[in-house]
Amino acid sequence: MKKVSEPTITRLSVYLRHLTVLSEEGVETVSSDDLADRSGTTAAQVRKDLSLFGTFGKRGLGYRVAELKAQLRDILGLGSRWPVALVGAGKIGAALFGYAKFRRQGFFIEAVFDADPAKVGQRWDGVEVLPDDTLEQVIQERKIRIAVLAVPSEAAQAVVDRLVDAGVRGILNFAGHRINVPAGVAVRSVDMALEMEGLSYAVTHAAGGSEAE
Amino acid sequence: MKKVSEPTITRLSVYLRHLTVLSEEGVETVSSDDLADRSGTTAAQVRKDLSLFGTFGKRGLGYRVAELKAQLRDILGLGSRWPVALVGAGKIGAALFGYAKFRRQGFFIEAVFDADPAKVGQRWDGVEVLPDDTLEQVIQERKIRIAVLAVPSEAAQAVVDRLVDAGVRGILNFAGHRINVPAGVAVRSVDMALEMEGLSYAVTHAAGGSEAE
Repeated sequence: MKKVSEPTITRLSVYLRHLTVLSEEGVETVSSDDLADRSGTTAAQVRKDLSLFGTFGKRGLGYRVAELKAQLRDILGLGSRWPVALVGAGKIGAALFGYAKFRRQGFFIEAVFDADPAKVGQRWDGVEVLPDDTLEQVIQERKIRIAVLAVPSEAAQAVVDRLVDAGVRGILNFAGHRINVPAGVAVRSVDMALEMEGLSYAVTHAAGGSEAE
Repeated sequence: MKKVSEPTITRLSVYLRHLTVLSEEGVETVSSDDLADRSGTTAAQVRKDLSLFGTFGKRGLGYRVAELKAQLRDILGLGSRWPVALVGAGKIGAALFGYAKFRRQGFFIEAVFDADPAKVGQRWDGVEVLPDDTLEQVIQERKIRIAVLAVPSEAAQAVVDRLVDAGVRGILNFAGHRINVPAGVAVRSVDMALEMEGLSYAVTHAAGGSEAE
């Protein structure tokens, strides 16, 4: 399979969201123009992105909403239920644990770890916060492949190495620190402070025009 | 001033972080090679990014850490204290309110708004949660230019329109929904569910190699 870029995958997720809305509205077909408009891109981009994965839609007829939605869910690996580990039971961890959209898309945080004895043993919506040193065992036993990292930045790399050794292949990184992973392990980093600095740059230089979206 | 891309600005923030660490370690000069290594990029990229803003460093001598750090802080608009509004006092809002890195970089959430009467009147670390309908007045009075949006996605665009009318010029969007803003207003969107879908794609297709960082 061709190597597909991260922005392409993100656009597929966006198309899927709009197809889900259309499907809920009872719409049966959608043109690439309409899907592009809703997704903030061009029809040519929509066709190009989808062409990476096969032949979709019919010339002049557009895409069948239900069919394309099912195909995109399949491509994105959303057909299955993903058990997810959360490492770090602080404020950010707690907010992510309660984030309803994860569950709606099939991502279930089923194991929470923390090194702080004061947090270990807490029950979050029925999920017990486990001591950090059980991480490898639990991840292996439950065959967890995706983890959310919400630990302090100085602890990030050591935790990542242990997650990868235990079998995790996808890491959502909120630690605000660059992490190194071997080939075959995917990382998506969310760094709120970096994004904020992008805004202060843009607002400071606003006389020269906006720099963001 | 030249239009500078969002990834460039993000790299400047990353350089600044490493310069801050170097400065704390008492290091006085750094080569573009070393700064590039630490930042996960190339020396040529470092030089190109900095050249957009003037002449820095000396051939063969590298950059003076304290000087470049001060200049980058200035470029990024981090010299001043930014009062920030938070709209949405749910779990995500609460986690962002408590996010220490914002304050460390000069971003202070000084006004919190929510439409839910059960939340209005709560005090968060001395900051009162205000009723949604005071948003315009408070933002104008306090000359707030940056806002964090943590409202449900269906409410996002209406709140954004009001924020922009009240004078906000930079929006950190956690609403999980695309928002439209006029020219001159910067948006950075953080969408955790989209990032998670990127991981499930990568893990599903891992036989073909990692798609992420």
